[in-house]
Amino acid sequence: MSKNLTTKTTEAPLRSTPGSAAFDAHSASRDRYFLGIDGGGTKTHAVITDSSFRVIGEGFSGAANPLRVGLAEAVSHIGQAVADACAQAGIELSNIGSACAGIAGINHPIHYHTMKDALDEALHVAGLELVTDARAALEGALDGKPGIVVIAGTGSIVIGVNQDGKEARAGGFGPTLSDEGSGYYIAQQALKAVVSAFDGRSPKTRLAELICNRLGVASPSDLPGVIYNSDAEPVEIASLAELVDEAAREGDEVARQILTSAGRELGRLAASVIEKLGLHSTAFHIGCVGSVFRSGEVVLQPLREAVLSVAPRAEIGPPLYPPAIGAAKLARELA
Amino acid sequence: MSKNLTTKTTEAPLRSTPGSAAFDAHSASRDRYFLGIDGGGTKTHAVITDSSFRVIGEGFSGAANPLRVGLAEAVSHIGQAVADACAQAGIELSNIGSACAGIAGINHPIHYHTMKDALDEALHVAGLELVTDARAALEGALDGKPGIVVIAGTGSIVIGVNQDGKEARAGGFGPTLSDEGSGYYIAQQALKAVVSAFDGRSPKTRLAELICNRLGVASPSDLPGVIYNSDAEPVEIASLAELVDEAAREGDEVARQILTSAGRELGRLAASVIEKLGLHSTAFHIGCVGSVFRSGEVVLQPLREAVLSVAPRAEIGPPLYPPAIGAAKLARELA
Repeated sequence: MSKNLTTKTTEAPLRSTPGSAAFDAHSASRDRYFLGIDGGGTKTHAVITDSSFRVIGEGFSGAANPLRVGLAEAVSHIGQAVADACAQAGIELSNIGSACAGIAGINHPIHYHTMKDALDEALHVAGLELVTDARAALEGALDGKPGIVVIAGTGSIVIGVNQDGKEARAGGFGPTLSDEGSGYYIAQQALKAVVSAFDGRSPKTRLAELICNRLGVASPSDLPGVIYNSDAEPVEIASLAELVDEAAREGDEVARQILTSAGRELGRLAASVIEKLGLHSTAFHIGCVGSVFRSGEVVLQPLREAVLSVAPRAEIGPPLYPPAIGAAKLARELA
Repeated sequence: MSKNLTTKTTEAPLRSTPGSAAFDAHSASRDRYFLGIDGGGTKTHAVITDSSFRVIGEGFSGAANPLRVGLAEAVSHIGQAVADACAQAGIELSNIGSACAGIAGINHPIHYHTMKDALDEALHVAGLELVTDARAALEGALDGKPGIVVIAGTGSIVIGVNQDGKEARAGGFGPTLSDEGSGYYIAQQALKAVVSAFDGRSPKTRLAELICNRLGVASPSDLPGVIYNSDAEPVEIASLAELVDEAAREGDEVARQILTSAGRELGRLAASVIEKLGLHSTAFHIGCVGSVFRSGEVVLQPLREAVLSVAPRAEIGPPLYPPAIGAAKLARELA
């Protein structure tokens, strides 16, 4: 990762009143603010933290994956989330000591460098480092300890690190190549279930009505007209996953099965990372991050079963910190 | 279907020498030439036939599905295939008595009317009728008799007609909604198998080398860079299906399993149409059309098993006539 960045002397940020207890307690590091960015396939979350990683400002915006929304829109969303975080924190970008952005869709070196150059030009943040959104989530979820993070938002990926510092991943290749257990996967399974039921190939499901209503069509036979109509705004396929959650909560069996299969697929990805890192007999944390986990046990139970069958001492739960805080922590580490 | 088309008096075509045996045999209909077009997701095939449906000229061109390549390109491909067919037949478009185009991607009324208007303007063929590519394939495969056609090219669809003239279909909703057993399905399964093997989640496969070579990348980890790179020409995902055929012939077990699962999925689609048409105890023909069937028994055997388990008197084989001839026959029927 390039370290040849413009470095600026960080001016002392003066938001806290000098002399206040909070300010004095951290006076030794009052010139250190960290910017952490979590830029995913659907939303961007930026935080400004103090040197104890307490959030003093945050901002939210749209998708940051340049492969999904294009470079210009991704950079614009990141810039907006960062500006909002700075405004809430009452500091200027020039007060930030170091920054790290975890961005989806930059795994390939070409995409990494394109995004790095664009963000350097757009943000002018001193010492900005770029990592994948998965790396930032891993840092937040485990706070530096060995373990695994299972990410299932628009896309899915599992990454982990063992006691020797070795990292491994599975999945994360995007919807065409590998989307197992992601919001996109869930939404596409739902669309397939709806047209299959319409064909009489599989059981009726409440998803038909929910999806047709959301997309503004009268019947599943009209779905190709909205899914493939290049003149209209592209349908955000992955966003239909929330309707699967809704239908499952209403007791729809097809929706429940889709969410269960998503959990099972995520468990398979996790099992492969456990294998690669040799974590079978270790006690370690698995942090589950992303919108898919809002569905709760229907996803978590099959995931837990798949994981515990290969690593009985694993402990599955929420991340210790959200990915944006993970990015802020990486900002200090990588600076 | 609109019948309000400009009708022209068809001039007598004068290619055959008047007085020749062949000409005399059909002199009663010497003013009737038929144009049949099969416009699919990858290629367009146009034929000019005489009134006995003997091909006197044919032309080939690229994709005709407006949802895949855009309306202008689809119409241009169709126009070129028709022009080549006319040139080979030595006749003018104005000599054609009636014409029928079976076009992929026009199932929705909006797409149907857009394509109809564009073709009327581009071709100026008297009495041009439009049907789906599946309808033309059905006509060709069964030559008007009850039965089923299983189409698996870029996309997949099964349609059939019973002795009462009732039609039914399954599948055919495009790659996002329903692509079971299609070239797109096979290619995507192959891509998923390659990245999964790269992750260590599934067995190694010869497909990794074949696909990376075809796409010009060194490793599966570089695949996202070519699959999602919107600056370059989009990768024709479905065309990778021929590499699965190649790998299967070389004995690659992963490739064989993908083709077997495609056959099984096509069998499920067929079983659902058999169900809808009440053909369980009838003797009828199932015509298999499309590039996927070039793989032979590895696809046909699971398809046959699925079909015979619900309709033991079904007979599976090639179509009686190709879809373009089916379209030419529909031209007479619909005129």
